[in-house]
Amino acid sequence: MGVIASASADEGQWQPHQLPQLKSELKRIGITIPAEKLADLSKHPMSAMVSLGGCSASFVSPDGLIVTNHHCAYGAVQRNSTPEHNYIVNGYLAKTRDAELPGGPNTLVYVTEKVENVTDHVLKGLSASMSGKERHEQVESRIKQLIAECESDKAYRCSVPAFHRGLEYYRIKQLMVRDVRLVYAPADSVGNFGGDIDNYEFPRQAGDFSFLRAYVGKDGRPADPSPDNVPYKSRDFLVVSAEGLKNGDPILLAGYPGRTSRYKLPSEIRFARDVDYPAKVASITADLSVIAASTMGNPAWDVRYASVAKSLNNVLKKTQGLLDGFARKDIAAIKDVQDAEFRRWYKQHGKGGSLLSDLDTAIGNDMASSQQEAAWAEATHSDLLKSARSLYRLSLERQKPDAQREAGYQERDLSFIKARLTRLEQSFVPSVDQARWTAGLNRYAKIDAKNHPHGLDALLPKIDAIPAMYKSTELADTAKRLAWIGKDPEAFRKSNDPFIQLAVRLHDTGMALEDRRKEVDGNLERVIPQYMEAVIAWKKSQGKPVYPDANSTLRVTYGTVGSYTPRDGIVKGPFSTVEGIVEKATNKEPFNAPANLLQAIREKRYGVFKDPVLGTVPVNFLTSADTTGGNSGSAVMNKRGELVGLNFDSTYESITKDWYFDPVITRAIHVDIRYMLWVMKEVDHADNLLKEMTIKYPKK
Amino acid sequence: MGVIASASADEGQWQPHQLPQLKSELKRIGITIPAEKLADLSKHPMSAMVSLGGCSASFVSPDGLIVTNHHCAYGAVQRNSTPEHNYIVNGYLAKTRDAELPGGPNTLVYVTEKVENVTDHVLKGLSASMSGKERHEQVESRIKQLIAECESDKAYRCSVPAFHRGLEYYRIKQLMVRDVRLVYAPADSVGNFGGDIDNYEFPRQAGDFSFLRAYVGKDGRPADPSPDNVPYKSRDFLVVSAEGLKNGDPILLAGYPGRTSRYKLPSEIRFARDVDYPAKVASITADLSVIAASTMGNPAWDVRYASVAKSLNNVLKKTQGLLDGFARKDIAAIKDVQDAEFRRWYKQHGKGGSLLSDLDTAIGNDMASSQQEAAWAEATHSDLLKSARSLYRLSLERQKPDAQREAGYQERDLSFIKARLTRLEQSFVPSVDQARWTAGLNRYAKIDAKNHPHGLDALLPKIDAIPAMYKSTELADTAKRLAWIGKDPEAFRKSNDPFIQLAVRLHDTGMALEDRRKEVDGNLERVIPQYMEAVIAWKKSQGKPVYPDANSTLRVTYGTVGSYTPRDGIVKGPFSTVEGIVEKATNKEPFNAPANLLQAIREKRYGVFKDPVLGTVPVNFLTSADTTGGNSGSAVMNKRGELVGLNFDSTYESITKDWYFDPVITRAIHVDIRYMLWVMKEVDHADNLLKEMTIKYPKK
Repeated sequence: MGVIASASADEGQWQPHQLPQLKSELKRIGITIPAEKLADLSKHPMSAMVSLGGCSASFVSPDGLIVTNHHCAYGAVQRNSTPEHNYIVNGYLAKTRDAELPGGPNTLVYVTEKVENVTDHVLKGLSASMSGKERHEQVESRIKQLIAECESDKAYRCSVPAFHRGLEYYRIKQLMVRDVRLVYAPADSVGNFGGDIDNYEFPRQAGDFSFLRAYVGKDGRPADPSPDNVPYKSRDFLVVSAEGLKNGDPILLAGYPGRTSRYKLPSEIRFARDVDYPAKVASITADLSVIAASTMGNPAWDVRYASVAKSLNNVLKKTQGLLDGFARKDIAAIKDVQDAEFRRWYKQHGKGGSLLSDLDTAIGNDMASSQQEAAWAEATHSDLLKSARSLYRLSLERQKPDAQREAGYQERDLSFIKARLTRLEQSFVPSVDQARWTAGLNRYAKIDAKNHPHGLDALLPKIDAIPAMYKSTELADTAKRLAWIGKDPEAFRKSNDPFIQLAVRLHDTGMALEDRRKEVDGNLERVIPQYMEAVIAWKKSQGKPVYPDANSTLRVTYGTVGSYTPRDGIVKGPFSTVEGIVEKATNKEPFNAPANLLQAIREKRYGVFKDPVLGTVPVNFLTSADTTGGNSGSAVMNKRGELVGLNFDSTYESITKDWYFDPVITRAIHVDIRYMLWVMKEVDHADNLLKEMTIKYPKK
Repeated sequence: MGVIASASADEGQWQPHQLPQLKSELKRIGITIPAEKLADLSKHPMSAMVSLGGCSASFVSPDGLIVTNHHCAYGAVQRNSTPEHNYIVNGYLAKTRDAELPGGPNTLVYVTEKVENVTDHVLKGLSASMSGKERHEQVESRIKQLIAECESDKAYRCSVPAFHRGLEYYRIKQLMVRDVRLVYAPADSVGNFGGDIDNYEFPRQAGDFSFLRAYVGKDGRPADPSPDNVPYKSRDFLVVSAEGLKNGDPILLAGYPGRTSRYKLPSEIRFARDVDYPAKVASITADLSVIAASTMGNPAWDVRYASVAKSLNNVLKKTQGLLDGFARKDIAAIKDVQDAEFRRWYKQHGKGGSLLSDLDTAIGNDMASSQQEAAWAEATHSDLLKSARSLYRLSLERQKPDAQREAGYQERDLSFIKARLTRLEQSFVPSVDQARWTAGLNRYAKIDAKNHPHGLDALLPKIDAIPAMYKSTELADTAKRLAWIGKDPEAFRKSNDPFIQLAVRLHDTGMALEDRRKEVDGNLERVIPQYMEAVIAWKKSQGKPVYPDANSTLRVTYGTVGSYTPRDGIVKGPFSTVEGIVEKATNKEPFNAPANLLQAIREKRYGVFKDPVLGTVPVNFLTSADTTGGNSGSAVMNKRGELVGLNFDSTYESITKDWYFDPVITRAIHVDIRYMLWVMKEVDHADNLLKEMTIKYPKK
């Protein structure tokens, strides 16, 4: 079984309230902030941490100035870029607040204000005899109610995520700031230096940082974007230490890690390794070729699909990295050993019953459903079709009272749905979508028929009917697409639009798949928490606390600055330096470092940002912190809680850490605050921001 | 100008007699052997060093046991291998002396006994008014006489190489042992682990070592191979230290480095970088494709050309490495600066005259000749044609008294010519030779006509005449080829063999090219020594000794064990370990490590060979020693002169050291004695050899 993450090495994505249990560990590595203080979200430094929804960030001034990764602010930069003012290529700096640019509907800031354990509210009195689907729906319904209560004040966005796969539930209350502006982004050739080639790699020399600012209404409460809004007065912010770190120094890292699978069973690892991931790699690889082929020769189309391709490449490299990692180290075998230990313990000390066999059954069903869902995804691999399905589903859900609607289709979700349907225009070209879907249908046809969702084959259009669908649909037009919001189901059923028609036709099959998923999940939610409870008891018997798998909630990890050995005879890190930029610099993307930056390096204009040991400006560095996707932009703090860097990636060898944390090779990659400040001063002259932040410079 | 190698860092391939000038340097790094002792070739440890002609080696027992690189003994292994007894694949160990196998005519051992400065004899009274060719021939003639005197005892092989490109000449007297036997070679998958992929790379895990034994007649003097011969009683041998080295330890390295160009002028570097090397890379790359295509599907042919391809690949990687290095660091610009410094000094302190402009003229002519020679090489790119030309030339030279014959065609050279003509059968297939020559002629046709040797185009066969030449020639037959030795020129002129005919036809053009080369060289030999004399005076004024460029004579270099940084953020070395073998091991060449070796590693059967810091057996290590091709097999000694490893390669980033020694990135790669001994003990059970050597084991 997927056991066992415990407080050894620097492993652990801890819920803040768990930190007092780790006092001695924090002290051992040299953290001077009391663990109790770190556990309190209303106190410094935790009250300076924010989520961007998918990325992490932190306040760095009392006026709502936020620092995060360049790649996390990329959407805002892209949105404001035009061929005439290409902020992606040239970067952007607002020298005054007036010049700060709207981040758009997808740039949101979430400030976590309250975290409550609501496990009892979610689980109390659930009948053991319920079907999986019934149980799942009951839990969902209670969660929706908990959220609705919490969101009575519209300034807040609430969620009730499961911890330990359903053993505990916490209600997270976040202030949602919806007027967020782009303050400063360096040129892409700084922020994304090395691009996809260096993604997941070290040595790396990426200036992956940008600044945003949260704006609120004059009453201090979140408001729709408006020129009348004023900067948000952040309760707290991080002081910046330009002193940086040296090898061996301790760090704290806080942020919103997305998803890990540390407690999965060996059978689940084997399924991922042997079935799911290889299929995913093949599918994405094929999709990327289709995108490349169908945008070729058209730079405007190329731009539209740039971020789609970027994100697919990222998933591809990560998935391939997992497969490579599994090939390098037999994690399933390691977990087998831990599983055997656990089973021995469980036999003596556990509650007995059918837990372990129930678990195997639930997981077996999960795998079977996953394969059908993967087939479904290939068959419906069109952005237009997805839009049509989402619109029809919305129309159906809106027939019900709000509280009974499916999560994701409630009134609270409407603005997100609109934003998504609008944003499509930025990354969509009909002929490219057509090519991707056609290829997806061809891939679907090659999947073993036993994994085709029941009845789906008969509903899908023939390949040669596809071109006509794209010719006659009106959904590619944003206004016409949005106009479907609010229409009733009958209007959909009567529509002549071929994508709306297909969405209607596919609906029942899609729902059957969804119902089956609910049944599977409901059973998992019943069994896995019992398993996790046993695991926690087992670890407790060894005196070890257990952290939950990442679930996009605020977590704290700690570690030390350090190098690693990827292969015999080679040591990487802990620091890269600006000289590495010169080494890699070509005039070609992604190594097209700006001329003024190269000039500053050649002239060694390092000033106070020169590291005394390295004799130059450090760019990126490695630590043993336990991070994952979603931790992008997380504040890296020194022992006093001062900002010394931003997390933005991890090494290729670390990718398997989502399944198993191997302290020998796992390293997170951070951008060094000294490089950020140096670029701001020497290259981009962001003196206004340097002045706004509270920066502690090293003593001369 | 190609200035300036001086005694900074660990640069310098020193003539042993220069070492007393470097006393303080040797002391600084921790060498305890007195410099005066190292200068004396008749004393330990220098008297244990031998040359294999192209490789270096050393005695490790009083019974003529010699250790060198696996790749230096490869010919001997290959020669004894058959499909039934494949010693390349399986390795070979003679458990008794009777089982030691003949190394063949190309396996020779040279023991340097005497080195005399004969500069006066070579240069005294040469008239300044001589043409370049006259001067060159006069020098050659004096050298031949010096050699003839020295070789009056047939046991010796003598040479009079130029130092500082002709400023000094030394006569080297070497005992030539011609019965050399293969004692032990590990499997190719140990000795050449990593193969061409890892060639010039680190981390590396190659067990590049083998053992030979020198045999002599019962009278103790060199004799032709015979079962009656007895092991040579070596005057000296190296003690082996199984203690090994650690990071920072000093080393001494003695051997026969082949050729360096440290004192070349910036114009010569630019010619190599911009003209000569790019053409060489293109030509070899094309030749390798032809070999691959024309041997494909025929494993026996593939084997015949394996060592040809290996050596071409080696030259290719080295040349490409030089180009990469030149691209990475502008060595010509560095030399420009040194050149300017030298010129300033020369203006004030030099002898004046036309030296500098004479130098430029001589070098310009050298470049022009080089281009014609390169074109000639393409046009005559056939092993059969080369054999025919060599046979005809021999016949012509033998018309003259021995002393007047061209060097290389004297009586003393006959056995080498025979060996070469015989050995061809091991690495020759007519149809492959035909394909290579055809491709060479096509490349020749594409070379700018101004670089075609005068008159050559009209003499070359048409491409479509080539197949018929291969059909009717008898030269492919070894016996028939050898039968031409001793025939008179008339016989050649009357021959119907198309290759003999072509050799006769090409003769005058070839001679014209050779004469031109003599003229060019004669002028270089006049001018460059004057330049080197000035350079040495200049360095002397700074208190710095100057070592001559490598010229295949015995040299000593020193350095320390250390890692290096090939790129920002990465450190390589100084050690690789047996764990790296497991990491790289596949079942496929060149990473097909033997099962018993992998087993021993997995079981950690390291015994006394375990490094206390690394916790495992080191395989290869890096030092800052100054080496080049020819240093393969050189003894790496600790501060007391005990054998701790064998030199076998250098890192890719070091390749440009032949032109410019950059102490920051230049590292030689050695095989660690502990790995050698461990393989001998745990894998190959070479207990007889472990017993024969004097090994100092670490204290428990």
